[in-house]
Amino acid sequence: MALDIRTESLKNPVPVAEYLFKRLHEVGIRSVHGLPGDFNLRALDFLPEAGLKWVGSVNELNAAYAADGYARAKGISALITTFGVGELSAMNGMAGAYSEHIPVVHIVGCPSTISQRNGMLLHHTLGNGDFNVFANMSSQISCDVARLNKPAEIADQIDHALRECWTRSRPVYIMLPTDMVEKKVEGQRLGTPIDLSELENDVEREDYVVDVVLRYLHAAQRPIILVDACAIRHRVLSEVQDLVKKTKLPVFVTPMGKGAVNENEPTYGGVYAGSGSNPEVAAQVEAADLVLSIGSLKSDFNTSGFSYRTSQLNTIDFHSTYCAVRFSEYPGVMMRGVLRKVVERVDLSKLSPPLIPKVINEVAKNRDSFTDITQAWFWPRLGEYLKEGDIVVTETGTSNFGIWETKFPPGVTGVTQIFWGSIGWSVGAAQGAALGARDMGIDRRTILMVGDGSFQLTCQEVSTMLRHRLKVTIFLINNDGFTIERWIHGLEEEYNDIVMWNYTQIPNAFGATDKQFKKFVLKTKDEVDKLLTDKAFIEGDGLQFVELRMPKLDAPRALKITAEISAKNNARTE
Amino acid sequence: MALDIRTESLKNPVPVAEYLFKRLHEVGIRSVHGLPGDFNLRALDFLPEAGLKWVGSVNELNAAYAADGYARAKGISALITTFGVGELSAMNGMAGAYSEHIPVVHIVGCPSTISQRNGMLLHHTLGNGDFNVFANMSSQISCDVARLNKPAEIADQIDHALRECWTRSRPVYIMLPTDMVEKKVEGQRLGTPIDLSELENDVEREDYVVDVVLRYLHAAQRPIILVDACAIRHRVLSEVQDLVKKTKLPVFVTPMGKGAVNENEPTYGGVYAGSGSNPEVAAQVEAADLVLSIGSLKSDFNTSGFSYRTSQLNTIDFHSTYCAVRFSEYPGVMMRGVLRKVVERVDLSKLSPPLIPKVINEVAKNRDSFTDITQAWFWPRLGEYLKEGDIVVTETGTSNFGIWETKFPPGVTGVTQIFWGSIGWSVGAAQGAALGARDMGIDRRTILMVGDGSFQLTCQEVSTMLRHRLKVTIFLINNDGFTIERWIHGLEEEYNDIVMWNYTQIPNAFGATDKQFKKFVLKTKDEVDKLLTDKAFIEGDGLQFVELRMPKLDAPRALKITAEISAKNNARTE
Repeated sequence: MALDIRTESLKNPVPVAEYLFKRLHEVGIRSVHGLPGDFNLRALDFLPEAGLKWVGSVNELNAAYAADGYARAKGISALITTFGVGELSAMNGMAGAYSEHIPVVHIVGCPSTISQRNGMLLHHTLGNGDFNVFANMSSQISCDVARLNKPAEIADQIDHALRECWTRSRPVYIMLPTDMVEKKVEGQRLGTPIDLSELENDVEREDYVVDVVLRYLHAAQRPIILVDACAIRHRVLSEVQDLVKKTKLPVFVTPMGKGAVNENEPTYGGVYAGSGSNPEVAAQVEAADLVLSIGSLKSDFNTSGFSYRTSQLNTIDFHSTYCAVRFSEYPGVMMRGVLRKVVERVDLSKLSPPLIPKVINEVAKNRDSFTDITQAWFWPRLGEYLKEGDIVVTETGTSNFGIWETKFPPGVTGVTQIFWGSIGWSVGAAQGAALGARDMGIDRRTILMVGDGSFQLTCQEVSTMLRHRLKVTIFLINNDGFTIERWIHGLEEEYNDIVMWNYTQIPNAFGATDKQFKKFVLKTKDEVDKLLTDKAFIEGDGLQFVELRMPKLDAPRALKITAEISAKNNARTE
Repeated sequence: MALDIRTESLKNPVPVAEYLFKRLHEVGIRSVHGLPGDFNLRALDFLPEAGLKWVGSVNELNAAYAADGYARAKGISALITTFGVGELSAMNGMAGAYSEHIPVVHIVGCPSTISQRNGMLLHHTLGNGDFNVFANMSSQISCDVARLNKPAEIADQIDHALRECWTRSRPVYIMLPTDMVEKKVEGQRLGTPIDLSELENDVEREDYVVDVVLRYLHAAQRPIILVDACAIRHRVLSEVQDLVKKTKLPVFVTPMGKGAVNENEPTYGGVYAGSGSNPEVAAQVEAADLVLSIGSLKSDFNTSGFSYRTSQLNTIDFHSTYCAVRFSEYPGVMMRGVLRKVVERVDLSKLSPPLIPKVINEVAKNRDSFTDITQAWFWPRLGEYLKEGDIVVTETGTSNFGIWETKFPPGVTGVTQIFWGSIGWSVGAAQGAALGARDMGIDRRTILMVGDGSFQLTCQEVSTMLRHRLKVTIFLINNDGFTIERWIHGLEEEYNDIVMWNYTQIPNAFGATDKQFKKFVLKTKDEVDKLLTDKAFIEGDGLQFVELRMPKLDAPRALKITAEISAKNNARTE
């Protein structure tokens, strides 16, 4: 009876599921990934009236990867799974989102609070009566866990979780029991949007840091800017752009920062990743006497195996939760406010930015006399095909290294998972990113670069691309196995081999007629040239599936260097 | 230097990986599922010399499902994944093995102890320097966790983990750092097999329980035997068989116990699962005045939603860790010893087993005048096609309920995952079971019954079946979506729809020519009859792929009943 009294006290009672889904819509989500399961079915009924589309994913891991990709394109995303089986299948995808700072709201439909209290021996349980075990696992890869068990608390829990998800740019986990779906919460709250604003820095502390930064910047002879993953994830790209445009300092990106700056800026210098970098780029970065390092994430694969040759004594670090000048740290001073004031207050008369060579797609230089499609030639060639606004998704393996040699036109979004590095991720991520772009009402091409080994893990996501008629062009690099693993260890070992599929038949097997997609198998540079200049192909409506036959052991230079360092690190015993 | 002294003290130093893999071979494993990843590559080099075959799975979840199936056919199995990404992808599969009591050894190649100590920002980490986070998650779904960090302890850790895995019939998790792979342990230990023997019961206690059991049994007028999952998992099937043969008591199985007894025994009575049972079966079981319940696991889907109408006052429970007579519990008295003595000591003159009707495949009775392949007709019809020694794998959904109506010939192994109930599991499990059977040198058919919705999650496992030329016949029930979910909630809702694939093209897309497998699309009962009596099809060499077009909303009776109870349970709010 207590519940009824509570409900009657509500001014505008709305069901929990409606409240939750309207909040998802409010923060920008339009499509929801996931699979049905008996513990989430009733909740799914509430999606349409909240303006949300159900994607109908093919499996949960792919759905999580896709939600990750959606969030990278659209800002934030949601995934709905069912208790135990569904959520655990998504675990690797959600861990990747956590590791890579991607805001995904993971909603798990779970048994009713009554079943939980009674410790019932339900399907999808471990048989030990513990209904919190999976939530506890997920708490390790979520920045907030909300167990929606008490109607009086639920609206607060939801608002808090969504705020955490957005501002900390990491996944949250929401456990929705079947008997809570239709419990009532205060609908009037929906009139006030969730506060997603970032906290402001303490002005005195911020000014102090800005002064220090400017002192070093004005004194530097060869300052540069280096933009990394967290500049994208924590959304300071407009500040970065203003900084680049105003100061005209040479600007470089890390592999995970690729796409963060307009590569047509005259001061854009290329991709820096220590000894894996193009030698000219390395020389320029390492000659700098001051590095303005924005949102850095110095993981092994983002630094060619920790091979940076920049010194912390020459570095100013800008992060989402602190800044650091050389070895002086300023906890709680967040980069956005500092960057804004640096842009405002910088004295251009005191800057003498060095000139650096223009970055171009080095196609001619890398064209050898063989007809085979080589890695060295292909990646710059891809750059000439790209156009403004493309979403370029690359996979762990040759693509993530090869793309360093591809110059992006302005407004290209680079989507990679270099830090977490889960193979197969890109196929889901491409689907999600394409859907995210469409949900923004923008006509963009999504271009996926994926290796054959990785593609096999998550091939079903092609079915979802077809289901929603997404505009995706897939370049599948068929080089007969796990080339990145071969370069780390076991060049010719059986465990790096895979089965040779008929890749371009995959969309047909997933139900597409030859009219519903286009397929191509390319074996030579000339064939690539021809296709990449074909007008209809460039327009690229719907799904286009391109299989590129490339030599088995050919790999981008940077991959070989990073693989060698990884192998050494793995083998090290003292 | 301490390490060298230790190594010199070893009589027969062998590398850790060699020791581990030779132990796997010793306990019965011949093929190892998994995927390569840079943290496990060096270890994989040691597989061949230990007599282990690498399966080369297509993704980790499928690999875990396959390892589960392999263990069900062969007794125990192993899975090798890589740190973070690989192991988390396998999480749902391993949780299922835990929930369902399947012994799977999960070996995770992880960063070196040196990298761990230094908290390096490596790929496949969360970026927080915590290298134990994934092992901690897995500890919830493993009966032992071994972190192989100190060479002096490793041999003991491995032996202990394998013993736990076997005797407790549940997964174990072994974390193998790259720098431990070649560390030396005492190879002489390999001369003594790991002790996998079960503890014996305390004789006095055991005899006491046997006396009590016999007193009730001799006094009963209508005693029956009911065999459930844990009789299979804890390997008391020969004791059960002896009990059935000697006492001639009516014997029933639960859905999860199906395949545990020879269904050609004259006293075999069918599948009991409460109100979902065939009414005659329910009447017989519920009329019993004593139920010898062996290895019961009374989960919702194994009991048609907790609808048993047997009383604990009429029940004797035999379990792997205790027995119970009515409400008297005997902790630590394990079923095996008790069952053996009951068989030895039972006084047949005091038993008057009731006669029960013979179970047959009710094909004619269920043949209606429509040409469509109906659920009611198909399952008994399948029974006529089955032959001795088949492995029958059924999936969550219509198959797991339909198979109740299929009478198995002797020696059929039923493979289902009714308790954990993860859709898609059966495709991997079928691959693993077929491989397990082959590794035993036995020529068995593996027959997979899977729905279209479930198949889509894990379709790649067909590629692994082809890679190893396994003898698998797949019956894919194409009924246009998630029929089990439709019956629970949302009969015509979009979220229970899936994309219509060209299912029989899947093997072609995965690289098979039409010579390498056979494909069939069947739409009528007559077509089914014709195929199931075709000699070449019955022999069934290699992969056979049969798509059965069945009506969208048709479902086995038991499924509808269970779904209705589940829906009510989910909707219950007070």
